[in-house]
Amino acid sequence: MNNDFPAIYRLGIVGAGQIARMMHQASLQFGITPHLLAEESDDSAALAAPDAVYGHPDSLSTFAEVCEVVTFEHERIDIGLVERLQASGFVIRPGAKTLRAANDKAYQRRVLLNRGFPVPAFAEVRGPDDLIDFASVFDWPVVLKATRASAQGHRDVWIVGNQSEGIRVLNEQLDRQLIMESFQNIVKELVVLVVRRPGGNARCYPVIEQVNVDGIAHGYQTPASIGHGIATEARALALRVADEVDAVGMLAVELFLTSTGLVINELAARPHNAGHLTIEGSATSQFENHVRAVLDLPLGPTWSRAPAVVTHNIIGGRDHADPILGLADALAIEGVHVHLYGKRPSLGSKLGHITALADDLELADEMAGRAVAALVGRRPW
Amino acid sequence: MNNDFPAIYRLGIVGAGQIARMMHQASLQFGITPHLLAEESDDSAALAAPDAVYGHPDSLSTFAEVCEVVTFEHERIDIGLVERLQASGFVIRPGAKTLRAANDKAYQRRVLLNRGFPVPAFAEVRGPDDLIDFASVFDWPVVLKATRASAQGHRDVWIVGNQSEGIRVLNEQLDRQLIMESFQNIVKELVVLVVRRPGGNARCYPVIEQVNVDGIAHGYQTPASIGHGIATEARALALRVADEVDAVGMLAVELFLTSTGLVINELAARPHNAGHLTIEGSATSQFENHVRAVLDLPLGPTWSRAPAVVTHNIIGGRDHADPILGLADALAIEGVHVHLYGKRPSLGSKLGHITALADDLELADEMAGRAVAALVGRRPW
Repeated sequence: MNNDFPAIYRLGIVGAGQIARMMHQASLQFGITPHLLAEESDDSAALAAPDAVYGHPDSLSTFAEVCEVVTFEHERIDIGLVERLQASGFVIRPGAKTLRAANDKAYQRRVLLNRGFPVPAFAEVRGPDDLIDFASVFDWPVVLKATRASAQGHRDVWIVGNQSEGIRVLNEQLDRQLIMESFQNIVKELVVLVVRRPGGNARCYPVIEQVNVDGIAHGYQTPASIGHGIATEARALALRVADEVDAVGMLAVELFLTSTGLVINELAARPHNAGHLTIEGSATSQFENHVRAVLDLPLGPTWSRAPAVVTHNIIGGRDHADPILGLADALAIEGVHVHLYGKRPSLGSKLGHITALADDLELADEMAGRAVAALVGRRPW
Repeated sequence: MNNDFPAIYRLGIVGAGQIARMMHQASLQFGITPHLLAEESDDSAALAAPDAVYGHPDSLSTFAEVCEVVTFEHERIDIGLVERLQASGFVIRPGAKTLRAANDKAYQRRVLLNRGFPVPAFAEVRGPDDLIDFASVFDWPVVLKATRASAQGHRDVWIVGNQSEGIRVLNEQLDRQLIMESFQNIVKELVVLVVRRPGGNARCYPVIEQVNVDGIAHGYQTPASIGHGIATEARALALRVADEVDAVGMLAVELFLTSTGLVINELAARPHNAGHLTIEGSATSQFENHVRAVLDLPLGPTWSRAPAVVTHNIIGGRDHADPILGLADALAIEGVHVHLYGKRPSLGSKLGHITALADDLELADEMAGRAVAALVGRRPW
């Protein structure tokens, strides 16, 4: 296989799931075939791309040798290793500063609080006494969070209603570092996608709203059903966060709109599930803009291509049925876009997504819902 | 590499140039990784896709064994072989009837004339006497065409102004079968893209106009600058041709608008260069609709996403410069979409294309032209 495109665009992607698959497709448009560092040969991107290299994310230093720029599709990164590679002159985007702010929640909370960003009251948990003290000030329930996401996909957040529930979680998670946060009265969950180049040139997408059904996320929509003032504030906040953490590429700023205003919930330093709707719904997809940003190329416009854009996840069911068997029925629904990731169906795994563009949110949501039903034989909640 | 998607979508693509590359990308969206029959390891699609198989297009019968459906990106197909494979039960789309109508110009002209379609006056050329007879009726110049496209990319059409020019071409092309046609006074060159499923369900894209500068094609635009009546007639004509030749997948019907009306110039039974503008410019790209049609899946809508859509080719120059070196400058032009095919630059080869969407054709054309200039350092004509 012949990959001798100019070295300035020798892009490496760590990870080979669906996010990497979509980054790979966005790169191809520019005549660039990225290198992939995959873990399994049936990873979504490895199925779609030539020449994936297989190895643990920690084999990053070997991988970086053949790339001019390295980026990531996930958070399971050794930040110390990234720091050392950057110090040796490797170009890693986003870099250690951004990755630490996104991936280490204790560090993130300290940085954001120190800079005056709106975050929930929080503290590190060294033992049950800390939890009891915190609850005596902020009351129950308390939100417990692991500072690093589980590499095995285990649970990272617990809402504990009282002391005994809290202590049970602490005892079960003795090997993980936890923080505790005051419980937020969430009116809406919002995501603001920012794309930023080295040096600070940045653009922000219209605010996206996470849509929950029975408390479980089942999709995203834009525009968010919020006032203009809140939308403007959310976008300005996300751009300031991107500057603060020196983001390069996509940064997803997850926000809670509470009864007292916006607070920052999470940061993700990569293309985000909420941004799948940008593939058809935006002038430039988050994947293309991520590739542009990490290669330090001019960013594309971020406006919405339709008055309403809705995306629903396609989640594997207990029957392990392959959604591709419903493809013909889903495509019969005029105006929906079907994305399947080629993954082996398993319970709870993300197998694809649907995006619907329409003149209003209700119609787009209805179209997307029908397509999901066609693919998985039921509503996913 | 693990390719065990359900057998109903085991798609094979013969050819691995940029058309196959874009078909491959359209398939991936549905979780389908097509098999590719490539000729060279630096073919555009082979660079972007895993597991290309290398072989001459004539190794089709072996290739077809591993596919449930086989389709094509080019015309260099042994139609007799396709016929035999179909007779043995292989699913080849488009099939031999369509391929013969598109790829054998003598056969095509006879079929279309017999069915009352508007074609130029024509006849087969067995020797100089035929040419002289033809010119005595239809006058010079006469258009000579090889009935089959050259596998080596040699010239296939000659406009000869007199007897001695004509005889010189006949003598040079003794090994090829030629037809002759009456010269058309071309007002505009139009392309109508039709997508059609097995059984006849079909959709037509808005009429595209080929834009020539100094007599050389340098791009396409939609809408075509023609009246509503002509546009309606052109679309109806193309749909009837698709039915007549039993097209499956994309069929491009190239038309001349002459002072006396529409005549059919060429047929291409595959995604067509003119349709590159459908990637961003249409509700469903020609590549996605080709994949849907050959897999007998419901077709997507074909309306234009902008009032004006223009595409320009990026053609290799004498300097053999790689257009990717101009990528940063091209992407700085807001609203243009840059597609590079990853091919080694050579004089006259198609290295990519630009698509610009805008509120009017003049602006879109200007944007696309600036992007091409950024990529190739000069206007391509």
